[in-house]
Amino acid sequence: MSAVTPFANLKQVEAVLADEGLDAVVASAPENVTYISGFWAMTHWIRRGPQAYVFWPREGRGEASIICGTGTIDLVADQDIWIDKVRRFDYFAFEGVGGADLPPVHRRQVEILGEPQFDGPVEALVDAIRAAGLERGRIGVDEIGMTPQAMDRLRQALPDLKIVPAFELMRRMRSIKTPEEVARLRRACNITEDCIEASLAAAHEGMTEIEMARIFNRVTVENDAVPVLGCIGFGHRSALINAQPSDASLRKGDLIRFDVGGRYKHYRADIARIGVFGEPTPQVRKAYDALRAGVEHAHEVIKPGMRASELFDSVMDTVHRAGLPDYRRSHVGHGIGIDGYDFPNLAPRSDHVLEAGMVICVETPYYDFELGGLQVEDMIHVTRSGCESLMSRGSELRVLSA
Amino acid sequence: MSAVTPFANLKQVEAVLADEGLDAVVASAPENVTYISGFWAMTHWIRRGPQAYVFWPREGRGEASIICGTGTIDLVADQDIWIDKVRRFDYFAFEGVGGADLPPVHRRQVEILGEPQFDGPVEALVDAIRAAGLERGRIGVDEIGMTPQAMDRLRQALPDLKIVPAFELMRRMRSIKTPEEVARLRRACNITEDCIEASLAAAHEGMTEIEMARIFNRVTVENDAVPVLGCIGFGHRSALINAQPSDASLRKGDLIRFDVGGRYKHYRADIARIGVFGEPTPQVRKAYDALRAGVEHAHEVIKPGMRASELFDSVMDTVHRAGLPDYRRSHVGHGIGIDGYDFPNLAPRSDHVLEAGMVICVETPYYDFELGGLQVEDMIHVTRSGCESLMSRGSELRVLSA
Repeated sequence: MSAVTPFANLKQVEAVLADEGLDAVVASAPENVTYISGFWAMTHWIRRGPQAYVFWPREGRGEASIICGTGTIDLVADQDIWIDKVRRFDYFAFEGVGGADLPPVHRRQVEILGEPQFDGPVEALVDAIRAAGLERGRIGVDEIGMTPQAMDRLRQALPDLKIVPAFELMRRMRSIKTPEEVARLRRACNITEDCIEASLAAAHEGMTEIEMARIFNRVTVENDAVPVLGCIGFGHRSALINAQPSDASLRKGDLIRFDVGGRYKHYRADIARIGVFGEPTPQVRKAYDALRAGVEHAHEVIKPGMRASELFDSVMDTVHRAGLPDYRRSHVGHGIGIDGYDFPNLAPRSDHVLEAGMVICVETPYYDFELGGLQVEDMIHVTRSGCESLMSRGSELRVLSA
Repeated sequence: MSAVTPFANLKQVEAVLADEGLDAVVASAPENVTYISGFWAMTHWIRRGPQAYVFWPREGRGEASIICGTGTIDLVADQDIWIDKVRRFDYFAFEGVGGADLPPVHRRQVEILGEPQFDGPVEALVDAIRAAGLERGRIGVDEIGMTPQAMDRLRQALPDLKIVPAFELMRRMRSIKTPEEVARLRRACNITEDCIEASLAAAHEGMTEIEMARIFNRVTVENDAVPVLGCIGFGHRSALINAQPSDASLRKGDLIRFDVGGRYKHYRADIARIGVFGEPTPQVRKAYDALRAGVEHAHEVIKPGMRASELFDSVMDTVHRAGLPDYRRSHVGHGIGIDGYDFPNLAPRSDHVLEAGMVICVETPYYDFELGGLQVEDMIHVTRSGCESLMSRGSELRVLSA
C-alpha cells in the first residue's frame, strides 16, 4: 500500500466483503471508483460509456489494482491514490518519456507506461482476477458503470467466476464516513450555505431566477466547489420540485425556495432554505414552522442504533402536531457522500439503522401548488453519542425587506 | 405532437431507425433522453442509477412517450418538450393540486398526475411498447442508461421483443446538428473562449492553477454555462493530459495549457489554447506552429463527403511537414454535441464520412514530458459547401509579458 491516507472507510469495505462472503469487489461507477481508490477518472465522470474500474480483493486474497485507459494515467500519477498497482489499456502517444530529471508526476507516468498495455478494460480486469487466483471466486461487480458488453465479455472470459451485483453493496460500504469525509461534507455544506446567503443578499424586485443562480454559482466556484444541484424557484415556481432557474422575476410577497448543493473534493452538499421577499402570509408561516419543527426534532433525537423508519415516523409526527396535520411524504431524507443519495434511506419501510459516522440529509419538503414550495433540509453527522449539525447557520424563514 | 420546435434532428432519428430496420428506439442515457425529447431529468444527469426513458417509435408505428419518476414531472411541465405523452412511475406527494386558477406549469403537472401511476420504469416502458403494438417488434434499446436489472425485467415481460443495443445508433442519430444545435454549440464555444481570455488576462507570477481555474469557472457560470471540462496546467504540468488545477504556481517561462469547455443549454464545448508566461523557447514556437498548422489545414479542407480517416491523414501530414516530423496521435478530433465525443471519430481506421451539419473538434495535442504540453483545438461546423469555424478568436500562441 502507498503512503497516501485513504479518505474512504476501508474497514467498512472489508466488513461488507466479509459479511457477503465475497472474495473481491469491482468498482465501476464513477462514485465507487473514486471512493475505493481516490482515483477520479475525468472522462468517466463527465461522460457515459468510458470504462474505469478498481479491483479490490479482501485482505489476503490478492492485490488491488486500478484499471484505466492510458489516456488517464496522468490523473493516477497526480492524485492522492492509495493503490499502487495500475493496469492500463489502449494506446496513447507521449513524448519525452526518456528525459533525464523528470519531475515526480512524470516519472510516475513513465513507470505506469512500463506496465503492459491491455487491449481493453475487460482484458485488464480478467488479468487482475487471474493474478489474484480468483477465477473461480465469488466477486461483487458494481453493475452500474460497466457496459453490458463488458459484463458479457467478463462472463465469457471467466465462466467459473461467480458474479454478484455490487452497486447496492458499495452503497453500504460508503455509508459510514471517515473524519476526512465528514470534514469534506461539512465544507461542501458550508459553501452551499454561503451561496444561499449571497443569493438572498442580492435579492431585489424584478431580479430573475437566472440572475440569482449566477450569484449562487459564482460563490460556488469561487470556493472551489462544482455546481451540481441548483433548484431555485420564485413565487409559484417555488413549488416545482426540481425548479430550474428561469426568466421568472422576483415580486413582492414571493417565496424563494433553494434546494441546492455543490460538490467539494468529490463530496456533495444537499440542503434547503426558504426566503420570502416581503412579509410571509400566516399560512406560510404556520406551514414553515411545522416543517422546520420536524427537522429540528431530528437534531434532538438522532443517535446510533435508531432505526431509519423510526426517525421517519418521529419527524412526520412532529410536523403533524406542529401545524401540518395532513403532511404526506415518502421519505424525510437520505445519506450523503460522494453520491447525493447515500444510505440510509429515511423512509417508512427502510430497514436501515443509524450508525455513528453516517452523514444524513434530513428534509421536510412541501410542494403546494397554491401556497408555494417550502422546505427545510439540514446535513447532520451521526456521532457516537448522538449527532452534530454540519450547518453553520440556522434554518429560520428568511424574511427579506421588499 | 406539441407546438414546441425540437432542437434535435428528428429526420436523422427516423433515417437511422429506417436504415436499421427498427420499429422504435428507447433512449436511456441522459444525453439520449434529453436529445430525443428535450427532457432534462435532473437526477438522471447528476447521479448514476435513476431511470428515465423515452420511447420513440418510427413514424406511423405508435406514440412517443416520456417515462419518468413522478418526482420529475415538474421538469416535464416546465421544459420545452416535444412529446405530449408521459408515463410516470412511483408515488410523490403534491398539495394544492385541486386549486382554482393554477398557473400553466402547475395545470400541466395536474394533467400528468391524472395519468396512471406505474410501479416502476420497466412497467411503464412495457405499457408504451404494448400500446404501440410492438411486443414482437424489433426495438433499439440504449443500453448505457438502463440498469442490467431493468433490462432483465424488460426481457422477461416481453419475451418476443427483439432488442438491439442502441447507444452507438443514437450517436449516429445525434451526429448531424440542426441550426439550433449549431447555435448552442457556437455559444458554448464562445463562452469558453471568453473564459480563457479572462484567465490569461489575470495571469501573474505566483498565481496558482486553482486561482486561475476560479476565474475560468466564474466566467463560465456568469454566462449561464456549467463547468465540465477544466484542464489547466502550468509549466511541466501542461503535459498532463487531464491536468486538474493544483496549487502549482505560475513562473516565468511557463507554458499554460487549456483543454476546456462548459455546457450551455445542454451543449458542450471542447477547445484548447496555449499561453506562455514570458518568451517561448524556439523549440516551443516551432512545435506549436506545426501543431497549429494541422488545425488550420483542417479549416481549409473540411467538406461534406470527406472521409474522417482522410482528414486524419491530411492533418497529420501537415503537422509532420510543418516542423514535427515524428508527431504521433491516435486521433485528431471528434464530433461534439450534448456529449463531448459525438460522431465522427477523426481516426485512421474510422469509417465515418463528414456530412453537412456535423460539428467537430479538430485537435493536435502534444504531451511532451520535457518540452511541456501544447495543443490547438477548434470547433468547426461542416456546411454544405465546406465548413465554418465556430471560434470567435484566433489560435496564435498567446505570449504574456511576465
